Amino acid sequence: MSEQADPVSTGALGEREREGTIELLGTIAYGTISGFTRMAADSEMATDLRLKRALASMAVKEFHNHELLVDHIIELGGDPIAAMAPFEEAFEAFHARTKPRNLLEGLVKAYIGDGIASDFYIEISKYVEPTSREIIRRASSDHRDVDTIVGAVRDGIVEDPRRGGPLALWGRRLVGEALTQGQVVAADREALSELVLGLSHDRPGATLNEMGELMQRITDRHRRRMGRLGLSA
Amino acid sequence: MSEQADPVSTGALGEREREGTIELLGTIAYGTISGFTRMAADSEMATDLRLKRALASMAVKEFHNHELLVDHIIELGGDPIAAMAPFEEAFEAFHARTKPRNLLEGLVKAYIGDGIASDFYIEISKYVEPTSREIIRRASSDHRDVDTIVGAVRDGIVEDPRRGGPLALWGRRLVGEALTQGQVVAADREALSELVLGLSHDRPGATLNEMGELMQRITDRHRRRMGRLGLSA
Repeated sequence: MSEQADPVSTGALGEREREGTIELLGTIAYGTISGFTRMAADSEMATDLRLKRALASMAVKEFHNHELLVDHIIELGGDPIAAMAPFEEAFEAFHARTKPRNLLEGLVKAYIGDGIASDFYIEISKYVEPTSREIIRRASSDHRDVDTIVGAVRDGIVEDPRRGGPLALWGRRLVGEALTQGQVVAADREALSELVLGLSHDRPGATLNEMGELMQRITDRHRRRMGRLGLSA
Repeated sequence: MSEQADPVSTGALGEREREGTIELLGTIAYGTISGFTRMAADSEMATDLRLKRALASMAVKEFHNHELLVDHIIELGGDPIAAMAPFEEAFEAFHARTKPRNLLEGLVKAYIGDGIASDFYIEISKYVEPTSREIIRRASSDHRDVDTIVGAVRDGIVEDPRRGGPLALWGRRLVGEALTQGQVVAADREALSELVLGLSHDRPGATLNEMGELMQRITDRHRRRMGRLGLSA
């Protein structure tokens, strides 16, 4: 079967490929709903109404991305609740281990955490058939409205430069925890691994070399975001 | 000036009426953003993903209503942040005094609190010029997608009927706190009071008799919602 020849008809997906695709969509769908909840809850720490609105608006985008993914899981014949359930534990563990202690940590988490997750999903979407790829890209890219958040972090550091060190550490910790939980997710999902490695379809899968380059691109983009915040990565 | 003859041109509002209208819009705008935050945060208590999504979806609607109101405040030449600021204290006091201790209380609060607030805003919108009235109605009426929430409360009571009594008390407490904070808001806002009483425009204002009927309608609708939950009001 060649999905590239027939990008619209997801009905033509082989069973194992469909399974892997639904696993990936389920991962991102749970990630977006848990991201929504955490960001919205963290927006409570903002006493500045402009900032509260900026965080709320980011959270709401997460929810709309979530809905987009859920709709597509249904289109592929999957059950969204069942598809998301296996990823609950890893995402909740990530959030439990990265609970911001103050607003600045919450803002860094929203910007850095969401940025890494989106980059990662877009990278992985390369190995998915075109229709699902397009959905994942749409659900991952609408996060450019972050100037208020970036500005507030920079202002916070200018106001008290001693905040820079701990916030840089916090950024590193977010990445570490994300990688840890990401590995937990990947290790358990065979159909998803087969999809990424190209074992369940006839498009080229990821080579070890490509996976290295992918991690490099994600790291570079993370470093740029940290720099935008005025933090060393 | 007669706004009824010229419903679209809000630029024709007298200064005092404009002030009162912006006060009302600011009240509802702060109410919706704080409702968003609280509902989204309360959705964390839901372990059932279907329920989590239902609460998240209600929260997201609140945010969109918030945006609608903020845009209209700008159209009227107001500053949304300044317009909302005076109401922060009352709404935050309401939420601080009605923090749900468990998911069922959170669900009852989302359904009952949001219902009363919407009913109240729609009633008050009668005294506002037509364009703003339409915005307030649109921002207050999109909350009919509550079957999942109502069902979960009913199920919770069926599962353990001893929950019914405390939840009914909780519902009454929500109304009591809402009325208390509502009075705090109303007492301090002169332009808004003049607007409702018809002192700043030439449409008919509220009579004492009408205010009584208004409270009656709000009470009746509240009672119906409590009944839908299986609770005595």
